[in-house]
Amino acid sequence: MTQPFRIAIAGLGTVGTGVIKILEKHAAEIALRAGRPVEIIAVSARDKSKDRGVDLSGLDWVDDCAELAARDDIDAIVEMIGGSEGKAADLVRRSLAAGKHVVTANKALLAHHGYGLALLAEEKNISLAYEAAVAGGIPIIKTLREGFAANEIRSVYGILNGTCNYILTEMRETGRDFSDVLKEAQEKGYAEADPSFDVDGIDAGHKLALLSALAFGTHPDFENLKITGISHLTATDIHFAGELGYRIKLLGIARRHDAGIMRTLEPCLVPKESQLGSVEGVFNAVFIEGDFVGKSLSVGRGAGEGPTASAVVADLIDIARGLRIPAFGRPAKDMAAPTWLDAGKTQSRYYLRLEVLDEPGVIAQVSAILRDYKISIESMIQHGRDPGQPVSVVLTLHEVSSGAMQDACRAIGALDIMREKPCLMRIESL
Amino acid sequence: MTQPFRIAIAGLGTVGTGVIKILEKHAAEIALRAGRPVEIIAVSARDKSKDRGVDLSGLDWVDDCAELAARDDIDAIVEMIGGSEGKAADLVRRSLAAGKHVVTANKALLAHHGYGLALLAEEKNISLAYEAAVAGGIPIIKTLREGFAANEIRSVYGILNGTCNYILTEMRETGRDFSDVLKEAQEKGYAEADPSFDVDGIDAGHKLALLSALAFGTHPDFENLKITGISHLTATDIHFAGELGYRIKLLGIARRHDAGIMRTLEPCLVPKESQLGSVEGVFNAVFIEGDFVGKSLSVGRGAGEGPTASAVVADLIDIARGLRIPAFGRPAKDMAAPTWLDAGKTQSRYYLRLEVLDEPGVIAQVSAILRDYKISIESMIQHGRDPGQPVSVVLTLHEVSSGAMQDACRAIGALDIMREKPCLMRIESL
Repeated sequence: MTQPFRIAIAGLGTVGTGVIKILEKHAAEIALRAGRPVEIIAVSARDKSKDRGVDLSGLDWVDDCAELAARDDIDAIVEMIGGSEGKAADLVRRSLAAGKHVVTANKALLAHHGYGLALLAEEKNISLAYEAAVAGGIPIIKTLREGFAANEIRSVYGILNGTCNYILTEMRETGRDFSDVLKEAQEKGYAEADPSFDVDGIDAGHKLALLSALAFGTHPDFENLKITGISHLTATDIHFAGELGYRIKLLGIARRHDAGIMRTLEPCLVPKESQLGSVEGVFNAVFIEGDFVGKSLSVGRGAGEGPTASAVVADLIDIARGLRIPAFGRPAKDMAAPTWLDAGKTQSRYYLRLEVLDEPGVIAQVSAILRDYKISIESMIQHGRDPGQPVSVVLTLHEVSSGAMQDACRAIGALDIMREKPCLMRIESL
Repeated sequence: MTQPFRIAIAGLGTVGTGVIKILEKHAAEIALRAGRPVEIIAVSARDKSKDRGVDLSGLDWVDDCAELAARDDIDAIVEMIGGSEGKAADLVRRSLAAGKHVVTANKALLAHHGYGLALLAEEKNISLAYEAAVAGGIPIIKTLREGFAANEIRSVYGILNGTCNYILTEMRETGRDFSDVLKEAQEKGYAEADPSFDVDGIDAGHKLALLSALAFGTHPDFENLKITGISHLTATDIHFAGELGYRIKLLGIARRHDAGIMRTLEPCLVPKESQLGSVEGVFNAVFIEGDFVGKSLSVGRGAGEGPTASAVVADLIDIARGLRIPAFGRPAKDMAAPTWLDAGKTQSRYYLRLEVLDEPGVIAQVSAILRDYKISIESMIQHGRDPGQPVSVVLTLHEVSSGAMQDACRAIGALDIMREKPCLMRIESL
């Protein structure tokens, strides 16, 4: 058997320790698959004394992870620290510059700096691998980068954040409001103490930036992605969506049009019985459409120790076996600066919830504005009556350009009868 | 740019010509991804004069495909002839022996001879790739071989034949009988003139043999797979399954138990709302369960020119880029001779349809036999009454060993009151 593949792990949270568990439990099989043993040489984390449930006694403990990049007894660095800047970014840059392969789950780092890091890896002829960064339980990076490499990708879209999908599922099943369900999710460990990365859509946005780079050969360009989270959604919206035959999902969508690529990350209504509509709880689901392969769907766990560590180790086996492939499928120097389609020009059906005073003439004012923007009403629901009090009115609207819809929504929002900001969501037939 | 990757295609049916179309349409992008151009040098098929809608003028035409194996201007052979023996088997063996990579969609060949061919490829340090052999629209070979390489696979199961799934879907939607729907499927080109490979489960069985080899590191061992097709299913079964909340799907299942691996290929009832239950028409769907990654599902087109050719070209790009990986993930010499679990010892719930004479005492006779085999009845349906005439009685049965159920079914089938062979199917909760 040839030389062992020697790695160091920086960051020993649940995923880092999960990697140690897998490499220990499946050492023999992994050596068979990789063609040589994968051996942990050193680890680095904040607190040496913490009990992580794994035996670290045979491993070098390094206090300052930056030292790992300089060691010549290490072939690859597993970066499990997280964050787009600071220690993680520094370690990855130093490691690549020193000719060490890097495996990471750090979607923030890659969404912000992926292009530059891919260039650096290429210059050194080494691998920068990040299967664990997007939907750990689905080999979606490999599928886009290798499995569907024969296709021009038309679109990639789906449910990219398990925490949000769990919250939306719970809201639907229990009828409770966002803040209530979020609190419970935090207690159960499904949501972070600071949940904003998840519920504001940032985490899913990072993933969409990576998927669009892989799909279209463009820079990740996270900065130009428009993101809407789920924290403004109410039990009322969930209820009305259900009554109309839909479920609300936080969707990342990247779609090739003739004029450019449309990207959006926002909660949308999808048909209840559709394949995305039936993906519930902490699961992720991604559709890819290619010009030859057609549409394919993958569903699996998005996060958690097991799935994420599984993806990290798969990357390690690939690299140990000799896989050298550009981080985004095509050489970084050939990645294009993207032409994003002005989202205002894409067409969609819409859901619009208005909190209005229940008084004569309300619908006339709203429908006059819609008429002025040439927007056709498909359906309207108002339950009960409560003269002089606020009441929910929900409309669904036929295909209209996003720009016109936003303008109409602003005009409606400015009416005196409005008691809250209108809630506007795309209806995706997918 | 380095030397082009030079290929020859043997067999120019829809998939072979599809490969030519992709390599032509996406030549530039494929060269970027592979790191060098993929160039077709020669082709071989039965009829040179046939119009296939692709331009063959710049390519060498070879009448006898066996000659391709001996040419030293070719790096890889794309075998699109088909069949487990004869010309295809001969070409693949000669090509591997001559040190040429082989890409094929030939599931029959690999299910029967995969182990020996993998040994031969390994000896020559070349690739034997077959992503297109199983569910062309899903990169399932890559997922099992690479994506989930960090896991002990617990099970792999799903819908592996689009023709059968199309027929079962049509039967359900139209209420028509098997032979009627088959005829229409043949007219539409969804089923072959000789449909037995599909409807008798052979094609799906070949695929299951390959998936179980990849999942468990064992020989494909198609010969020891018990297969039941769908041609005995009636509109009555489809109807009763629906009434009970199920859909009938032809499932391939391979599952690791403590005592060995259980494999079966047979029509089963699955819950209507389950993820497999909602996969309809020509689609394939495969679940994989690993000890760290958990459960994941992939859905995509199983066959057809585009998806299958897409998978072939993905394999070519991998090999052109330098991927060298054992055909079944682990080295062929380390593949184990499988220990198949005696299916009679696995437990399942069951659906049992009996065509009996409608006369007093029928249920007493049937239930006495079930009692003798210690099988509990979960539910029983009989619609209408027609004294003295044949009538359908459908039972669902609680968990019972397959062996006891088969024995009881035989005993029931031998009763005088029976008018047809009983129809017995597993109910899979999955």
